[in-house]
Amino acid sequence: MEISTPRRQELSRHAARLFAEKGYHGTSVGDLAEALGVQKGSLYSHIEGKQELLHETMRDGAEAFHAALDAIPERLSATEKIRLALRGHLGLVAEQLEVATVFVQEWRYLEDDRREEVVAERRRYEERIRAFFREGREGSEFRTDLDENAAALLFLSAANWAYTWLRPGQDSGAVADAFFALLVDGMRGYDTPA
Amino acid sequence: MEISTPRRQELSRHAARLFAEKGYHGTSVGDLAEALGVQKGSLYSHIEGKQELLHETMRDGAEAFHAALDAIPERLSATEKIRLALRGHLGLVAEQLEVATVFVQEWRYLEDDRREEVVAERRRYEERIRAFFREGREGSEFRTDLDENAAALLFLSAANWAYTWLRPGQDSGAVADAFFALLVDGMRGYDTPA
Repeated sequence: MEISTPRRQELSRHAARLFAEKGYHGTSVGDLAEALGVQKGSLYSHIEGKQELLHETMRDGAEAFHAALDAIPERLSATEKIRLALRGHLGLVAEQLEVATVFVQEWRYLEDDRREEVVAERRRYEERIRAFFREGREGSEFRTDLDENAAALLFLSAANWAYTWLRPGQDSGAVADAFFALLVDGMRGYDTPA
Repeated sequence: MEISTPRRQELSRHAARLFAEKGYHGTSVGDLAEALGVQKGSLYSHIEGKQELLHETMRDGAEAFHAALDAIPERLSATEKIRLALRGHLGLVAEQLEVATVFVQEWRYLEDDRREEVVAERRRYEERIRAFFREGREGSEFRTDLDENAAALLFLSAANWAYTWLRPGQDSGAVADAFFALLVDGMRGYDTPA
């Protein structure tokens, strides 16, 4: 049996669903073969095994998250970039809840070079978010003593934790805007000095 | 062999470490027996199995998180309660990183009544956090249109996600205060209208 590219993508989607539901260690190659309707042996002749599938899921996830940032126009203010980045991130989590779950929970089971590659992509994403906050501070959109590390960490916490509560079909844009308003404006009265 | 209460606590700590490192499904009863230096058979004569250990770890975790909220004096302002709650939560994560990891990542493998019990304790904790924000809005510490659900979710995201980056021995209090300042005051200049 030939596993074509669409067939591989189907396999990768099934793997994401199983890894999200049962965990990487709780998913057997037999489970994967059954989900795809093939024999274990024919699965093994086309993939190295679970590590390769986990890696594909993670790589596809990382690409989607970076692509969402790539789509943000450079000419916008830093504040608006942050709003769109939060919308983009939560939108991806809502759309691909299983991939997001695997991305957060199962990446640690990647081994060696594959793990390093995925960790490097995560760091690059985090740095791109941090850069928005730095840009906002340097351009005086934010206060001069803004801690860009804490700000990026709060953004990433809100964005990453969403896989635990966002439901497919939920209006992730509205949630993103509510988070954005809290992040930027805080909680006090608009006219209350800090 | 008798497993005494201190021995059970030792077992629960070893279980938390193994579940955090290898995941619930990646940890065998053999691994647990080996970590405690007992035979598998004698382990089975004192616990039902991994489910019971996972449940104990989760119940201990839930108790510690609730105890941290119990310690906050009622007479304080809502804003100060939120600051202390964030400090307490991040302090627990930093102190008991393995329990916090299991609490976030492995709770979903609990079954039936044990799962329901832990989910109910999580919901109760979330409701207590939400109540602080409601109290702050009703007492005019926060603006009147503050969305207490979004605010509590942002708090809980920051607090729960910390298990991925807090390192043992890190000054969790300083991080908590930086998050708190962002949450309450936002990012704009102190004199910039929203």
